[in-house]
Amino acid sequence: MATRKTSPPAGASPWKPAGARAQQREAKRNAVLQTAARLFNERGFHATSLDDIAEQLHVSKPTLYYYVKSKDDILLECVRTALGMMQQGIDEVRRAGGSAIDQLMACMRIYSRIVTMDFGMCVIRIGEDPLPAARRKELRRLKAGIDGEFRRLIGDGIAEGSLAPCDPKMAAFVLAGALSWIGRWYNPDGGLDPDQIADQSIALLMAGVQQRPATAKKVAARKSK
Amino acid sequence: MATRKTSPPAGASPWKPAGARAQQREAKRNAVLQTAARLFNERGFHATSLDDIAEQLHVSKPTLYYYVKSKDDILLECVRTALGMMQQGIDEVRRAGGSAIDQLMACMRIYSRIVTMDFGMCVIRIGEDPLPAARRKELRRLKAGIDGEFRRLIGDGIAEGSLAPCDPKMAAFVLAGALSWIGRWYNPDGGLDPDQIADQSIALLMAGVQQRPATAKKVAARKSK
Repeated sequence: MATRKTSPPAGASPWKPAGARAQQREAKRNAVLQTAARLFNERGFHATSLDDIAEQLHVSKPTLYYYVKSKDDILLECVRTALGMMQQGIDEVRRAGGSAIDQLMACMRIYSRIVTMDFGMCVIRIGEDPLPAARRKELRRLKAGIDGEFRRLIGDGIAEGSLAPCDPKMAAFVLAGALSWIGRWYNPDGGLDPDQIADQSIALLMAGVQQRPATAKKVAARKSK
Repeated sequence: MATRKTSPPAGASPWKPAGARAQQREAKRNAVLQTAARLFNERGFHATSLDDIAEQLHVSKPTLYYYVKSKDDILLECVRTALGMMQQGIDEVRRAGGSAIDQLMACMRIYSRIVTMDFGMCVIRIGEDPLPAARRKELRRLKAGIDGEFRRLIGDGIAEGSLAPCDPKMAAFVLAGALSWIGRWYNPDGGLDPDQIADQSIALLMAGVQQRPATAKKVAARKSK
């Protein structure tokens, strides 16, 4: 009985409960991925070594191997996570319903927001090129799914009369291309924050860069006065 | 005198004149770059070896080294050539003059046309990531020059009243992003040829995807009948 009294209470065990251990491992793995993604985006995938990533996290390279298998494995996870976030965001928008044009704009906002984040930026700046063929194929399938959602929403928008008649496939490429590019040029230290960039890009894509004829006439009339 | 008669005429020398030799070397070097670009775009930069390139050209790897220093060197040349073609095309458009909106659309056409070609596609699909820092910097400078041309033309278009007021920097990113994306998805065996893709992309970017209010009202009126 005396020995039971000196044993530590359950909460004080030097071993954490299994659930907490799994959670902590997940958090650490996530920190590895996040740090790696940031370095890939800043320095380039090839210029970043596992040693660089370990150094940033103040751990040894063998410690990294406890969480990830290789640099390829890290890139795959970063890109997969970003594409998963996009798909999940789009699913939520579609479940919430509303007009196709509003859903499309909400999805464009999600897309542009994600490409300014570390994982999403990896999709655009690094892409799947460094990965083996099977992995490239998997990531292309995820991308094709997101592209399909954009095409469907554009088709619905044309049907409801809110979007101008066009080839939904071409329009989806134009929208996704312009929004993807944000991930190439976005600089967190630049003058615009991600929400402003999303607003301005979406406005330009919806209305086009050309002056609308009615306004153009007004401008001409004003100038001729 | 007899010996002179049996000597071959000037044109039949087994050694080509220096000019022709340089020309032939240039043509061969270009074939190496073109073949490499095509393989990089099809298989990915990392999945393509110098052996693959040599095999496609029916030469040995040592022969390749007579024309190029390394795989990095090839990529650098491909990207540099494409960016040079773009800048040259834009220079010609600007020299020819005309309204800013017409010049902008002509430059957009050049840009979209080049990203469907082997070298231009390399700029988009591979980019400068695999290259050493100094090379990356050089290529970024060339890209910034092209971006600057687009910004200038957009600013001029706003001033002449043909483009809607906007931030030229943002608009240049939107246009270049959408057009760059063509290099990612373009497939020579697909249904659309590069000119059709350029036309449709430019039309969408100029007018936007949204139905114009006047047309929307007409559509609504037609539907309510």
